[in-house]
Amino acid sequence: MDLLLLFEIVGIVIALLAFMVALYFYFWVKKLPKGTADMENIGMMIKKGARAFLKREYKTLAGFVLVAAVLIFVFLPAPLWSENVDIKSKIAMTVAYIAGSVFSAIAGKIGIEVATIANVKTAVAAKTGIRKAFSAGFRGGAVMGMAVVGAALLGACLLLLIIPGSTNAVLGFSFGASTLALFAKAGGGIFTKTADISADLVGKVELGLEEDDPRNPAVIADNVGDNVGDVAGMGADLFDSNVAAIAAAVIIGSTLTGGSRVDMVLCYAGLGLLASILGVLMARMGKSEDPGRALNKSTYITTALYAILTAGASLLFKYDFRIWGATVVGLLVGVIVGLATDYFTNDAKKPVRHVAKASQSGPAFTILSGISYGFMSALPALIGIGISAAAAYYLCYPIGGADPAACTQYAMFGIAMAALGMLSIVGMIVSNDAYGPIVDNSRGLAEMGGLGEDVIRITDELDSAGNTVKAITKGFAIGAAGLTVIALLAAFMEVAEAANASFAGKFTGFDIMNPLVFFGLLVGLGIPALFSAMLIMGVDRNAQRMVNEIHRQFDEIPGLKEGKPGVVPEYEKCIDIAARGALKELVPAGLMAIVSTLVVGFAGSLISEFGGIYALGGFLAGNIVSGLLLALFMSNAGGTWDNAKKYIESGNFGGKGSPAHKAAVTGDTVGDPFKDTAGPSLNTQITVVSLVANLTAGIFIVISTMLF
Amino acid sequence: MDLLLLFEIVGIVIALLAFMVALYFYFWVKKLPKGTADMENIGMMIKKGARAFLKREYKTLAGFVLVAAVLIFVFLPAPLWSENVDIKSKIAMTVAYIAGSVFSAIAGKIGIEVATIANVKTAVAAKTGIRKAFSAGFRGGAVMGMAVVGAALLGACLLLLIIPGSTNAVLGFSFGASTLALFAKAGGGIFTKTADISADLVGKVELGLEEDDPRNPAVIADNVGDNVGDVAGMGADLFDSNVAAIAAAVIIGSTLTGGSRVDMVLCYAGLGLLASILGVLMARMGKSEDPGRALNKSTYITTALYAILTAGASLLFKYDFRIWGATVVGLLVGVIVGLATDYFTNDAKKPVRHVAKASQSGPAFTILSGISYGFMSALPALIGIGISAAAAYYLCYPIGGADPAACTQYAMFGIAMAALGMLSIVGMIVSNDAYGPIVDNSRGLAEMGGLGEDVIRITDELDSAGNTVKAITKGFAIGAAGLTVIALLAAFMEVAEAANASFAGKFTGFDIMNPLVFFGLLVGLGIPALFSAMLIMGVDRNAQRMVNEIHRQFDEIPGLKEGKPGVVPEYEKCIDIAARGALKELVPAGLMAIVSTLVVGFAGSLISEFGGIYALGGFLAGNIVSGLLLALFMSNAGGTWDNAKKYIESGNFGGKGSPAHKAAVTGDTVGDPFKDTAGPSLNTQITVVSLVANLTAGIFIVISTMLF
Repeated sequence: MDLLLLFEIVGIVIALLAFMVALYFYFWVKKLPKGTADMENIGMMIKKGARAFLKREYKTLAGFVLVAAVLIFVFLPAPLWSENVDIKSKIAMTVAYIAGSVFSAIAGKIGIEVATIANVKTAVAAKTGIRKAFSAGFRGGAVMGMAVVGAALLGACLLLLIIPGSTNAVLGFSFGASTLALFAKAGGGIFTKTADISADLVGKVELGLEEDDPRNPAVIADNVGDNVGDVAGMGADLFDSNVAAIAAAVIIGSTLTGGSRVDMVLCYAGLGLLASILGVLMARMGKSEDPGRALNKSTYITTALYAILTAGASLLFKYDFRIWGATVVGLLVGVIVGLATDYFTNDAKKPVRHVAKASQSGPAFTILSGISYGFMSALPALIGIGISAAAAYYLCYPIGGADPAACTQYAMFGIAMAALGMLSIVGMIVSNDAYGPIVDNSRGLAEMGGLGEDVIRITDELDSAGNTVKAITKGFAIGAAGLTVIALLAAFMEVAEAANASFAGKFTGFDIMNPLVFFGLLVGLGIPALFSAMLIMGVDRNAQRMVNEIHRQFDEIPGLKEGKPGVVPEYEKCIDIAARGALKELVPAGLMAIVSTLVVGFAGSLISEFGGIYALGGFLAGNIVSGLLLALFMSNAGGTWDNAKKYIESGNFGGKGSPAHKAAVTGDTVGDPFKDTAGPSLNTQITVVSLVANLTAGIFIVISTMLF
Repeated sequence: MDLLLLFEIVGIVIALLAFMVALYFYFWVKKLPKGTADMENIGMMIKKGARAFLKREYKTLAGFVLVAAVLIFVFLPAPLWSENVDIKSKIAMTVAYIAGSVFSAIAGKIGIEVATIANVKTAVAAKTGIRKAFSAGFRGGAVMGMAVVGAALLGACLLLLIIPGSTNAVLGFSFGASTLALFAKAGGGIFTKTADISADLVGKVELGLEEDDPRNPAVIADNVGDNVGDVAGMGADLFDSNVAAIAAAVIIGSTLTGGSRVDMVLCYAGLGLLASILGVLMARMGKSEDPGRALNKSTYITTALYAILTAGASLLFKYDFRIWGATVVGLLVGVIVGLATDYFTNDAKKPVRHVAKASQSGPAFTILSGISYGFMSALPALIGIGISAAAAYYLCYPIGGADPAACTQYAMFGIAMAALGMLSIVGMIVSNDAYGPIVDNSRGLAEMGGLGEDVIRITDELDSAGNTVKAITKGFAIGAAGLTVIALLAAFMEVAEAANASFAGKFTGFDIMNPLVFFGLLVGLGIPALFSAMLIMGVDRNAQRMVNEIHRQFDEIPGLKEGKPGVVPEYEKCIDIAARGALKELVPAGLMAIVSTLVVGFAGSLISEFGGIYALGGFLAGNIVSGLLLALFMSNAGGTWDNAKKYIESGNFGGKGSPAHKAAVTGDTVGDPFKDTAGPSLNTQITVVSLVANLTAGIFIVISTMLF
């Protein structure tokens, strides 16, 4: 039997298995005991708010997806009016694009639905002890984990099965996933931080209310934000990274000298999902364990399982072990980047404590020290990514034998497989990550539902474990994005080559000393900074609107401030403001990223033969490196500030209410859009830009060959 | 007569002319009327403080320079134990290195000496009107302007005259200038911001004192800081850029196919200084002019003069007009980058006003909006630099004729000449820039000397003009640094080629897809961030020490807080803390930048043939782009915060003492080390790293050819 066919089918089977596990967890969570009427009521409000936002967001995006689908049909892979136009390939690409965005939307939707059930169940389960509550939170998150990775693998396998050899369709699928992720991540990020910041500003800073005080009109919006930002947005993000890694590996793997290795890509991706399924099923808290250790343990188990399974498969199917080595390198680097992140954001380490201490001298020092640590944190991760890319390259280079061109292809394939290795255990990672907002929500529900100190203490413990593992998972996400986009850069060359037969002979590589490459590099460098600025300003503007609304409610609703029984704020109005503002602010930033790519490619095409390709290559590289730098800086600075605030709140340097605490709250507020809006959106932004370049390479070659 | 010899002599003559103008201005300023006894007394304290710091700084640096000189002698251009070692060339390089650092130190020293006279004279002159005061401030600054550029040209011409064809000696000269600039800029930056921040924190924020209140123990240190940071540091910085631009142009120009063009480099550099001399001599305030316009007018006059003079020379000596075009492109881009900077930091434009408005919602919003505008501001400047580099490249490419290799050489020469064009009017720019701290100081002296409201108003007006022109001059400085390092990257290739005959045939360019280039790119990317973080943390730590000292003085000196007549704080103690801390903090950051370059080159050399060159090429590119991005971000964000604070202080959004003002002060405090310590030091950092790579390229080639 053909190995490719075999692994297409195996992939589909494993994906279906993942869906079954997701269903099982869904019903397992659903069967857990109900909460009090109050809690169910609040839980329902959160669910309704999240649903309303998602509906509105998807409506906006549907329009965008339709327009993009039409453009794809008309222009890709070659304009409709070019000779020998291949209508079938056009239809495949367009349908794949739509499928990518729909799959992504569904995965997000599923995540939200179960997360907004699991939050209540976790809070109730906490009454009977921490272990049960842990399982409720984790399995709730795992539903999305399984759905996300299952959908990615299912989509890729189905496409390759139905349209054999169509790398364009896989690219289209990946682009669909990316555009949706870009908007979901940015939109959700703006929503959640709008609500979080304004709830804190008026509630905590002005009125001295506790976190999650039900009198605060923004408190439900804040909880909704956790779901739409962290659950749905993050699900879309990792769905996108996963699909992009598969796409890059498929594109490079399909053109290797000595035969396609797409079967191997699907084999490894399938085994990664299998390892995740097993890891997720085995995850539970031991009797004397803390929840953080339980989460990390299942990550390590999954990683080991993946390494063993793929080694076995390589032995069985005689795959080159050098490529296996490359994927293992990817895994290791994920862990290293995670550990580096952990150092800068863990409150037992120097950076967080130093920032907390500096806060005693006022907010300026909170900011300066946090920014400094954020700047510092970039280097170890960048070195890690650099070493892993180089290691994967050199490991796989010799496979090509005597032919340098073949060697380079295998080297690039090695980098793509390293990225795939990092993302292989993404099912586990999404589960861990979605666990965070669920237990965060359950803490709020326990507070609002009056479940007592013990339950709040348990949910607090679960919550803090979520924050700790976040460091590792974020390390994986950023590292994987870095390797994936390097692979996409290599794929970009393949695509350009395929688009023009004379290209390979004339193309001189992306030499930094080529003025168009350098020009692209400089422009690409500025885009992630501008993109981040637009998102941060969006949060800023939106939060101003919401603060006004909260003030209005406290002024106009009699008895609200005093907490008169029966007086309830108008929660929906705040949700509405957050949602409407988020949608308004996300579109320009997303469009800017896409349009600037096209402009650079077009401008380059006018200058010289293949000028568009040179300029775009530089642009991609600039965009990647600056995106990585800023993403690491912002995520880690934000994490440091967050934990410095918590460290002070736990009684250090004067504790809650002290001047140091006030300064730390300022730091945390600055860090919020850093770490939850701009930072993580950059991952998606660099993927989208890389895919746009891949998709449009052919067009720019056509333009410049017409001119030169 | 040989053109090269001619322009070496002409260069020396023009340099001597510049020194004469500097002397003339020095005595002109010195002859101006004296101030009151109080003012002379304070002025003397500032002078003494600045001298003491400089002495201490130069002592520390002398040790460093000596060690580096020994290392240079032993290892460069080839190790002492290699075959056919050329002792003469070693001596030339070592002496040139020492000369570069000594020239730089002398230029800084001269600047400080005259600036600490001119500050008093300007304050006194303000009693007789603004025009006289303007001339006093400007001519005081011009002394350093002339000294800096004269020294640069004199050094380069002398070296080329004495050791014909020795590009290595010019490189050594440039490296000497750079290392000194790195430490002078970073050390001065830490000193000045330590004093500024702690004076503000205790004086303004805690005790509600005015700026420059003589009761504040840190007030003299603050004034000393203006001189050692802005005058001496900035002088060293631009001396370094100027020499580096000449060095890059000389290296590339000496290896051109079709004959050396070093004569042209010296011709253009000499005419640039001549244009600056004329521009500086003509600068004065018209009767109805404001000082800002007067400063900008002389900049434009100098620019026009330079363009005309070089066009004439090109006609006369039959230089290719395409190269002339490249230098003019450089000039234009300097103006464009300056205008972009102006938009983001001018209080009549949206960004500053928006940040001021956002401050009403608290310091977190001041920070978020300022960071956003800082991020945004990078793109236009990066596009400007990218376009100018590409334009210079394409303009000069055809000069090479049918030979692509020759074409590329001329294209690179074009970029180097564009950088030189930008820096040609540096004499004017230094004069403008040094004017700023002088009038800033004179304002403080007028306040402390009790010269009355009218004089303070005049010095305020002069000061604000200084801030406005700063935008343009900073644009030139950053743009020029960008182009210079691109040229140094090209020079790096030439140097590597010269070091190994087989190199040219095997070297495949700095292709981004080469794993070592990419690895270097990623590591290089992280270095400016780490460097900035180290400097900012240095200011942070040092300011903490100084705040403690100020508190101690207010607590322990009876009558100080109340302003009892005759009670004077212990100013020297604060100066001492600032100086000692600055020296302690600057060394690790500077060494880190240099050592990381060597480590990357060494690691690369172990991996493959010419691996060190590939890794270093990527490292340089990463370092350049990230340095530019962060320098633009930090300088502009800092400028925006500074002016937002001033905008509020002038009565908007509640004015002085309002909550918005308090938030804006936090923003300004964060911005201080951004714009005056880390941001401008990055310019020098990227130059130093580029020069280190250029100097050590030969060694890494030796290592890797031994291994492979």
